[in-house]
Amino acid sequence: MRLSLLLAVLLLPCGLPAAPVPGQEAMLQRIFDAALTEGRAYENLAALVTLHPGRLAGSKALEDAVVWSETTLTALGLDRVHKQEVMVPHWERGAPESVRLLAENSGESALELAALALGGSIATPEDGLAAPVIEVRSIDELNALGREGVAGRIVFFNGPMNPAAANPWDAYRGAVAQRSRGPRAAAQLGAVAALVRSMTHALDDVPHAGNTAYVPDGGNIPAAAISTLAADRLSAALAVNPVRRISMRIHSRWLPDALSHNVIGEIRGSELPDEIILVGGHLDSWDISPGAHDDGAGVAQSIEVLRIFRALGYQPRRTLRCVLFTNEENGLRGALAYADQARRSGEKHVFAVETDSGGFAPRGFSLGSTQGPVHERAQRWLPLFAPYGIYTFERGSGGADVGPLMVLGATVGNLLPDTQRYFDYHHTAIDTLDKVHPRELHLGAAALAALIWLVDQEGL
Amino acid sequence: MRLSLLLAVLLLPCGLPAAPVPGQEAMLQRIFDAALTEGRAYENLAALVTLHPGRLAGSKALEDAVVWSETTLTALGLDRVHKQEVMVPHWERGAPESVRLLAENSGESALELAALALGGSIATPEDGLAAPVIEVRSIDELNALGREGVAGRIVFFNGPMNPAAANPWDAYRGAVAQRSRGPRAAAQLGAVAALVRSMTHALDDVPHAGNTAYVPDGGNIPAAAISTLAADRLSAALAVNPVRRISMRIHSRWLPDALSHNVIGEIRGSELPDEIILVGGHLDSWDISPGAHDDGAGVAQSIEVLRIFRALGYQPRRTLRCVLFTNEENGLRGALAYADQARRSGEKHVFAVETDSGGFAPRGFSLGSTQGPVHERAQRWLPLFAPYGIYTFERGSGGADVGPLMVLGATVGNLLPDTQRYFDYHHTAIDTLDKVHPRELHLGAAALAALIWLVDQEGL
Repeated sequence: MRLSLLLAVLLLPCGLPAAPVPGQEAMLQRIFDAALTEGRAYENLAALVTLHPGRLAGSKALEDAVVWSETTLTALGLDRVHKQEVMVPHWERGAPESVRLLAENSGESALELAALALGGSIATPEDGLAAPVIEVRSIDELNALGREGVAGRIVFFNGPMNPAAANPWDAYRGAVAQRSRGPRAAAQLGAVAALVRSMTHALDDVPHAGNTAYVPDGGNIPAAAISTLAADRLSAALAVNPVRRISMRIHSRWLPDALSHNVIGEIRGSELPDEIILVGGHLDSWDISPGAHDDGAGVAQSIEVLRIFRALGYQPRRTLRCVLFTNEENGLRGALAYADQARRSGEKHVFAVETDSGGFAPRGFSLGSTQGPVHERAQRWLPLFAPYGIYTFERGSGGADVGPLMVLGATVGNLLPDTQRYFDYHHTAIDTLDKVHPRELHLGAAALAALIWLVDQEGL
Repeated sequence: MRLSLLLAVLLLPCGLPAAPVPGQEAMLQRIFDAALTEGRAYENLAALVTLHPGRLAGSKALEDAVVWSETTLTALGLDRVHKQEVMVPHWERGAPESVRLLAENSGESALELAALALGGSIATPEDGLAAPVIEVRSIDELNALGREGVAGRIVFFNGPMNPAAANPWDAYRGAVAQRSRGPRAAAQLGAVAALVRSMTHALDDVPHAGNTAYVPDGGNIPAAAISTLAADRLSAALAVNPVRRISMRIHSRWLPDALSHNVIGEIRGSELPDEIILVGGHLDSWDISPGAHDDGAGVAQSIEVLRIFRALGYQPRRTLRCVLFTNEENGLRGALAYADQARRSGEKHVFAVETDSGGFAPRGFSLGSTQGPVHERAQRWLPLFAPYGIYTFERGSGGADVGPLMVLGATVGNLLPDTQRYFDYHHTAIDTLDKVHPRELHLGAAALAALIWLVDQEGL
């Protein structure tokens, strides 16, 4: 056997062909055509966010969305559609919160601050609390104040997302600890409550929800996000008089864990049915949000991937599975339960790709694996994607929902759409259908289907 | 002299360094920071479209925008700001048009169709005209009908923009002849008027304006665009009964050419002042449109490029010129007058880049030159742009305004922003400020400034 032939045979199982396989361009064209000319993702998204807004873990809206998802997947005529039971945390906002800067000296005005209790926050006393407010720009600044500067106060975290970061995700990652860990850190220094500047570059009066750490053993304080305009107004008032008090009312409560579900649809593979390729998004959203970009878009795109393959009559070699995860926003129990089930049953996931960054025009994918730099091997496919404005495979480690599958051996991936508008809407009441562009949404679904088809054909 | 040194010296004038010049990454970072943290393009755009909407050639709004531009450029403290006089065509819409499908048989309903007279259209008789309508999908289909099938009728061009085209510009170029040449072709076969399906993928009730060929010698017919929903409704009605009549009223008129202006601001080069680098957009818009994306965005970005250099204290080697062209939409007289002046005075434009594809997130540039494949030479700069989501230099031939400079020896270029949303708003009353995202607009301005800085440093 000649060396080259030997190499060719050895490489075959790895799915590393030397040159583009004929027909790949044509298949991608068929996939994108199917999405752009007869796509159903936008109409599915419209149904989901219109009929079932506010899909927070424990809510009726989420379980109604579970039923809707099962019905929608079943209508595709898949080989199997089922639900996986998951117990999820159950936090409720209760009556609307209020946060008010008090006027105590002549010449001062009281100021109502647009606010949302953070997910996980405990309630204030029924008739509210009032305390002096102290402004910081980071947890480090908080800690520098020490117990003496913090105890008995309301800590106002006002570090903005860095406007110079070209990619808003970098700015988000740089600021979000104020929301996720800040209230807890303030509590440990004796603060009585916390306010957090909303995580967005937008300057408006829309507060952004989001989770904050909650410790069942106690020592938690009430915490709320305020809009960026409210944060600027509060900061300006404190610049004039640093000794101001704020009154807050939050009516949230923790309830016992509730029953929820991951929803799973699959097309069984014809040659390698035990090798699973997964595409998914998360069904839940914040209670105050329709969750169109976060993550109705990902749900609709994940369903659309299977619809496209059905419409094209494509019989996959491997098993293709659409997983709609529950409880991404405030617990990740859906993702953990799914990975746990996969581990216990010994299921082999070769590839798991997530779409949870909004339904904007796709630009690429991140890919990660414990087996090596898969994003480099994927570069060979870039010429196939170029006609669709998709130009990058970057190193990554999956998103929150597929990440746990990486340690089980799966290559994990993330769809990377355009980023500039996402944090205008993230976790808000204005994350509505009209913010999603049908063609952008459908291009993203086609990009996912195209990558999955290539992985099914060639491996990664 | 050693060969390598000789080569280095020989290559210097061509500006083709072998390796990235130190400090380039840092300078691009400074440019993008200046745009993202203290950018003024969005606030300038807000002023332009709020104070001066409907900037059609011949209008007071356009000349008011000329004054605004001169004032805004002057406030930057440039070396020179001046206006170039240009005589422009003067077409006016007059009172709102109406297009109505008539009900003549029992069971039929009359149907008002959302319409806009096309730029250049002649008026109908004062009390309107009514005639049978015939639907075609292209000029070829029209011609196949011949005079017998067309004479005495209103031709309805209903060929949609191809939804399968991933880039909507390709779909636009494939359909727009129906608008630009269709009415004239119909007139030549004896049609009495023409209707054209709006040039957009969006399905809504917003008609899109745009120019149609007008021949001063006569033989023109009234022509209007109708919304895509109106086109679908009309087509459905004709499928039921192909013998329907339409009544139309258009009150437009042609007036003598009017005085308008290109507005030009420049920073004089310190080393090569006779070599000009130009960045520009067009000041005019359709009469019914605020013209936010088309092309208020380009105007604001072009001004912003000079503002960024001023803010950074950058003294360019070559002369940097911002040109705000008049009359792009229905005559191109601004571009032609500018190129003519450049030719007559022997000015040397080394690079002229245009921004007229909307203020969306930038993805790259097209570049063209009579001297060879400049876009290939520019590839060396891609690593510098990658952190900002800018990934492509494509072959092009400039846009409508800078294109005429190519034959004078200039390399011409176009900013390429994201494309999916542009034709939702193009030439419409909904091309409003809220459709433009401040960070996307500012990233585009920074991309232009970065490319211009590289050209100023290295040549192309």
